Amino acid sequence: MSKLHWEDFIVGSVAEYGPRLVSREEIIAFAAEFDPQPAHMDEEFARSTMLGGLAASGWHTCAIGMRMIADGFMTNSAGMGSPGIDQVRWHKPVRPGDSLTLRRTILETRPLKSRPDWGLVKFRFELINQAGEVVMTQENINFFGRRESAA
Amino acid sequence: MSKLHWEDFIVGSVAEYGPRLVSREEIIAFAAEFDPQPAHMDEEFARSTMLGGLAASGWHTCAIGMRMIADGFMTNSAGMGSPGIDQVRWHKPVRPGDSLTLRRTILETRPLKSRPDWGLVKFRFELINQAGEVVMTQENINFFGRRESAA
Repeated sequence: MSKLHWEDFIVGSVAEYGPRLVSREEIIAFAAEFDPQPAHMDEEFARSTMLGGLAASGWHTCAIGMRMIADGFMTNSAGMGSPGIDQVRWHKPVRPGDSLTLRRTILETRPLKSRPDWGLVKFRFELINQAGEVVMTQENINFFGRRESAA
Repeated sequence: MSKLHWEDFIVGSVAEYGPRLVSREEIIAFAAEFDPQPAHMDEEFARSTMLGGLAASGWHTCAIGMRMIADGFMTNSAGMGSPGIDQVRWHKPVRPGDSLTLRRTILETRPLKSRPDWGLVKFRFELINQAGEVVMTQENINFFGRRESAA
């Protein structure tokens, strides 16, 4: 399959990737390394919080989303990196045993004046659990190589 | 030390945490698990990209920042979780051997109408390398318990 270039991302198009299962072990392991707050590590403590039970660190959810983005299309693209993220919202807890699907919507594409061989793509990513609930939304900006430079 | 509550976060105040050293091994390990793009795993490939050499996944930088936030003050607070992040920008590559400092600025604090026992704090976090370069900025929203409920 040939690599995805900027021209292949069509505004308004929607694609889905996954599902990916999230285990209790990986929730606790990520928290122990990067976000050692008890609601992400201790089931009993977590039950006493607004989360109502063990839930993944929001940053773990972002990292799982990144892996699904990478496997779904990014590693097979002329991706040139990202300057950042415009918004992340964690809407619902991600629980042990959840099965997450990634939904990708293309919000915007435009050429880059500063680099005529690249273009910009703005994505909305949603992670959706097995009950159909959106657990996280993100708006991400990425640069991609163009098939034919505008220069 | 008594736990930090909403009242302890003063608008305009600045604090610094760290430094934290970033190793080549952890950059590659995070990428292998969550962001397996070659610029985060393969030194020679990375030299051919705009990064100019091996650099941490942006999500790894976020996760390192979270750990510094947790160790710096969050685990010693009445933190009640976060609805999300308003903006993430990756300004410079994070390299093996970088020593990162976290600078926290309090942008805004306000009571929550919906929960009189909680307040909202909006932070700007900057990660700064040993050369004084800001490598990442974030604007994060967190809820904290109040020492005295407004109810």
